[in-house]
Amino acid sequence: MSELRWDPLKQHWVIIATDRGRRPRDFLVEPEPSEITSCPFCYGNEDKTPGEVFALRPSGAANSTGWKVRVIPNRFPVLRIEGELNSRAYGIYDVMNGIGAHEVIIETPDHNRGLSELSPAEIAEVLKAYRSRFLDLRRDMRFRYMVLFKNHGQRAGATLSHSHSQLIAVPLIPPVAATELRICREHYAVKERCLFCDLLDFELQSGDRVVREFPNYVTMTPYASSFPFELRLYPKRHSHDFALSTDADLAELAVALKDMLSRLKRVLRDPPYNFILHTAPPPQPRLGKPDFWSSIEYDYHWHIELVPRLTAIAGFEWGTGFFINPTSPEDAAEFLRSA
Amino acid sequence: MSELRWDPLKQHWVIIATDRGRRPRDFLVEPEPSEITSCPFCYGNEDKTPGEVFALRPSGAANSTGWKVRVIPNRFPVLRIEGELNSRAYGIYDVMNGIGAHEVIIETPDHNRGLSELSPAEIAEVLKAYRSRFLDLRRDMRFRYMVLFKNHGQRAGATLSHSHSQLIAVPLIPPVAATELRICREHYAVKERCLFCDLLDFELQSGDRVVREFPNYVTMTPYASSFPFELRLYPKRHSHDFALSTDADLAELAVALKDMLSRLKRVLRDPPYNFILHTAPPPQPRLGKPDFWSSIEYDYHWHIELVPRLTAIAGFEWGTGFFINPTSPEDAAEFLRSA
Repeated sequence: MSELRWDPLKQHWVIIATDRGRRPRDFLVEPEPSEITSCPFCYGNEDKTPGEVFALRPSGAANSTGWKVRVIPNRFPVLRIEGELNSRAYGIYDVMNGIGAHEVIIETPDHNRGLSELSPAEIAEVLKAYRSRFLDLRRDMRFRYMVLFKNHGQRAGATLSHSHSQLIAVPLIPPVAATELRICREHYAVKERCLFCDLLDFELQSGDRVVREFPNYVTMTPYASSFPFELRLYPKRHSHDFALSTDADLAELAVALKDMLSRLKRVLRDPPYNFILHTAPPPQPRLGKPDFWSSIEYDYHWHIELVPRLTAIAGFEWGTGFFINPTSPEDAAEFLRSA
Repeated sequence: MSELRWDPLKQHWVIIATDRGRRPRDFLVEPEPSEITSCPFCYGNEDKTPGEVFALRPSGAANSTGWKVRVIPNRFPVLRIEGELNSRAYGIYDVMNGIGAHEVIIETPDHNRGLSELSPAEIAEVLKAYRSRFLDLRRDMRFRYMVLFKNHGQRAGATLSHSHSQLIAVPLIPPVAATELRICREHYAVKERCLFCDLLDFELQSGDRVVREFPNYVTMTPYASSFPFELRLYPKRHSHDFALSTDADLAELAVALKDMLSRLKRVLRDPPYNFILHTAPPPQPRLGKPDFWSSIEYDYHWHIELVPRLTAIAGFEWGTGFFINPTSPEDAAEFLRSA
């Protein structure tokens, strides 16, 4: 079983996932995708993956062909769903069992179409699958947060090229989310306004970093972009929880997401990228901390963050936490607008 | 000029270094090292770099051949030494000018020898060059911290293969250092002990993660390693400031550093890596904050952190701040001990 280990100096948790354990020789050659002969995400290979936990399927029985979007447990999960957390001290450190869920959302049965090449209606189905899994997993009180992300391209960490995204439920609020949530909470406590809404007001007025505006969504490059051509997709109306989106919301979001991914693909010729959905943690009234997230619906604002993987994270970035970005967000927005 | 921009949601600064500005086409192909015909770090090419700021040279005039270690300003500096900080608000953000220093330490005139292949005496000379630059740069009160790091191999961010390290002086304490310094300060306030000394006591007793012990230094894999085969090199005696090391200290440190780099090279066949020197910020009595770092000599403990670049940082890591490590630090230490 994986372990979560606490670093008392860096003040963060690390997941030691030894089930995927690798010895020195495993690092000597880049792992090659061995999928060309038989992709486990294609029609007819449903028995080569763990049994599906969800599928949008107009026809066919579970784990047969006929699906449009299919969600399965990851065959090599980072965290496992069976067991108890068992948080404990170890000398001056802390450790807990690697409990969680790790699912794969197969976005299309078509091996050769990327997410940006699906129709808005097809992308909306993928988004509905995300929503459905969020709503199901939050019923498990061991999971404090769900991370929905997509790795596109080998340099971005994708090991299979068939278009898919991943959902990992974790037993702790991750550091990046914890900082955002805390800062939004502090902002709201003083101003009774959402910090993201303030940011959107400023950016929509300025326009310098806006890539494309839709009636209810907007894509832009962040003012303090850590990476070249970094992108954000925000709902313009205040909304803390992605999983509460209606079908109509998701239909328009699909159009905005397709637009963002298509522009990126055109300007940078299908670059590797990661995107991550940032949303509020699930409500946990049973934890006996009724006030902890009591105003979350007012102070947090869900969004999607996208990072193209064009530059290396080197010693300076890793050692300091300062990122060096050679392309200004204003220039990046200009290139993306005119794509 | 570069800008430092504040991200109010992630609570960190980003360096937008547009002097190195890159347009979409620049990202389409990996930049190829064009150095094979003429390396600017080799003897005879001293005029192809900015003038040296320091050199250990038994013979020859400045900027001629005859040096053993040579320090020059980076030709494409991330931060520039000329100008004023000029910190200011911009809407809901903050911005300041990119003031700092960016130097390159050329570790040997020999194009074909890596740091691990130099003799301990030669490595000690490199360490003396580090010390000398730290002591010189801290006289500039605009610089709050100096980051000494090495990128080895193209995947680790090195653009020239001739062995070198870099030193960047920054106008702010970087986030990673700030967290360590704060946590050590809090630990000392309660316990009147250095947190690193406590950690070393525990690790030396346990031995599970110790790779090699020297009279005054020790190399080990951290309990909560974020990456496979991550390594730390600590002075065993409490010591907050690398720049106060004596020649005798540096002679033994050179032996320990060579041992660490050689083991890594043998076990993983010369992997790409980054190392970063973590040390106390320079004393700044003139800043009018006399108490801020008053106990730093008691509560901080300098060390070197090394990260081999074997696994990709993908969407999950970037989006959450949780790192997934497939190799346990105990296994890594065992492999490195027996190398």
